[in-house]
Amino acid sequence: MRLADGRELIYFDDRPVRRRGAPDLRALPSAAGRPGSQARYDPLLDEWVVIAAHRQGRTHLPADDECPLCPSRPGRLTEIPEEDYDVVVFENRFPALSLPGGAAGALVGGGEEPFTWRPGAGRCEVVCFTAEHTTSFAQLAPTRVATVLAAWTDRTAALSALPAVESVFVFENRGAEIGVTLSHPHGQIYAYPFVPPPLATMIQIASRRRACGHCAALAAESKARVRVVAETSGWLAFVPYAARWPYEVSICPRRHVPDLLALDEDERAEFPGLYLDVLNRFERVLGGGPMPYIAAWEQTPVRHGREWAHLRLRVFSNRRAPGRLKYLAGSEAAMGVYLNDVTPEVAAERLRAAGGAPLGAAARASG
Amino acid sequence: MRLADGRELIYFDDRPVRRRGAPDLRALPSAAGRPGSQARYDPLLDEWVVIAAHRQGRTHLPADDECPLCPSRPGRLTEIPEEDYDVVVFENRFPALSLPGGAAGALVGGGEEPFTWRPGAGRCEVVCFTAEHTTSFAQLAPTRVATVLAAWTDRTAALSALPAVESVFVFENRGAEIGVTLSHPHGQIYAYPFVPPPLATMIQIASRRRACGHCAALAAESKARVRVVAETSGWLAFVPYAARWPYEVSICPRRHVPDLLALDEDERAEFPGLYLDVLNRFERVLGGGPMPYIAAWEQTPVRHGREWAHLRLRVFSNRRAPGRLKYLAGSEAAMGVYLNDVTPEVAAERLRAAGGAPLGAAARASG
Repeated sequence: MRLADGRELIYFDDRPVRRRGAPDLRALPSAAGRPGSQARYDPLLDEWVVIAAHRQGRTHLPADDECPLCPSRPGRLTEIPEEDYDVVVFENRFPALSLPGGAAGALVGGGEEPFTWRPGAGRCEVVCFTAEHTTSFAQLAPTRVATVLAAWTDRTAALSALPAVESVFVFENRGAEIGVTLSHPHGQIYAYPFVPPPLATMIQIASRRRACGHCAALAAESKARVRVVAETSGWLAFVPYAARWPYEVSICPRRHVPDLLALDEDERAEFPGLYLDVLNRFERVLGGGPMPYIAAWEQTPVRHGREWAHLRLRVFSNRRAPGRLKYLAGSEAAMGVYLNDVTPEVAAERLRAAGGAPLGAAARASG
Repeated sequence: MRLADGRELIYFDDRPVRRRGAPDLRALPSAAGRPGSQARYDPLLDEWVVIAAHRQGRTHLPADDECPLCPSRPGRLTEIPEEDYDVVVFENRFPALSLPGGAAGALVGGGEEPFTWRPGAGRCEVVCFTAEHTTSFAQLAPTRVATVLAAWTDRTAALSALPAVESVFVFENRGAEIGVTLSHPHGQIYAYPFVPPPLATMIQIASRRRACGHCAALAAESKARVRVVAETSGWLAFVPYAARWPYEVSICPRRHVPDLLALDEDERAEFPGLYLDVLNRFERVLGGGPMPYIAAWEQTPVRHGREWAHLRLRVFSNRRAPGRLKYLAGSEAAMGVYLNDVTPEVAAERLRAAGGAPLGAAARASG
């Protein structure tokens, strides 16, 4: 369906039974007229930077009863017209990347070296994981995580089909300490008009070596065991040998799978339990208030490198101990050199020791 | 001189008159016995990560009267034995990089692919800018900044001479919001045993194009004017066309100078006034509490690429407006794609408009 300003909204339900027909009754100016962003080229590093000046006015830490991601109720219209939902995806109202002139105009840039730019073409979508405001991904039921995975997969396919899009990035920023401005459980999808630097580098290295680095790491980690946190027959969750963050886990399919679309049925069925297990281990080790984290899916670029890309979900927290944050200061933010105060083997041991029932189940049992 | 645990300490004075002979009277265990760190290789991205587990116990936000960077007084012994100082440099007590086995053993690594490591060889030094606890770099006198510049230059030369060192990184992290654990005005120097990724990339690109990207940017920015913030005959301070941070300024010598050692006398004489001017403009635009920033000197690696490196001081804040922080979340921290909410031309205009007397002078006049 379309929201009042023309933005697209799609419901994904746990069971294919409900009808979702509520219209958006708000009076919003058309999104087509809003200014777009600009991608500027940095020739020093061969990278693109997105300049999105129109986003300064975006919604910032609203009160709980003004949350735009809760379902609508009479007298309180939100971004989601229905009175309930399972999972819902919609275009961000303050997008860093968009297609204001339509896909056709998206690739015409300008400027003269060293000042060249292109339109900030692409899409930014919001993925709401639940209608419940005061919960977290870690407390979702496995069936709901399966619905979220289906939504991520579906959107990856849809966004990959847009001519301007070179890379689809599915992620969740969680927690005020990591800069999240809305506390309702949600993630995001960015469809970039270029290949992000780490993906380009990984593919370049793998293609030069004619060998996938992830496949090598998976084989070696399975054998070494010391950094393994959890596993299923199709997936391995481990702290990388050269982890950049104190608590960082890579979750990879064992098969050489390039993106979410290429996962098979068994891998899809195993993922929810494994991911919930990992998130709940993070919560136990780093708890004391909502645990901040970034969960980032690395998948193949749309148009090149597919052969050498290996799907990976990176989960890391900027908490280095309860109440202590890890900051990206000079060495990391200016020189790209990460200093990690927690030995990866120690982090893995702590995460392994923090097993037991998921927090959600415990909360439900005691509630 | 040497501190009680064997670490080196060097005084740099504004005028070459004072004697600095006070011994360190503390009883400290020898630094030679402390554990070192490890540099681990990430073959996925061809990058090194520093694992420094021994640093978790480092001093964290001490009370003002327990500051280890203030001069010593009777009954309150600090890292600096003297009762006063101008500028002082010493080895960090909790270094991410060190030479515990001496320079000779620093290059012997181990491990089998994909798990290879080297000792975290190098040096981490602290640079105290003033004995005054409650001031800031922006409030220093120009003569003091000249002394700091001399100290940075001297240490770059000394550290570049160590066999294990490939790159010397001079920087200042300022402000609790950027993770600084000691509020006393100070910067740091990291001598890395490898070339940090952005320096390697910039040199690779310049060498492939047979043209320095900084020289091209300087010529174009001088002509375009719209992003220039301040200048002297030898230096240009400007917001980069593809700025990654809302308020970010590059300060470059106009000449193709590879490092601090290669600056000439005129450039040295002009730098203090220009840099103080830029920092004070930042304070005025982003004020409301101590303005957090990172100031990072990019200079040539020690052993290669000297021909193509161009000295640059990058100054950027993680404040995007008074009271509002810019976080490195999913797009930046996982995909290396920066989203900047402030158009570089607007940032430059605001910084240009925020001229006038330095805050320090104003404070002194009114105090």
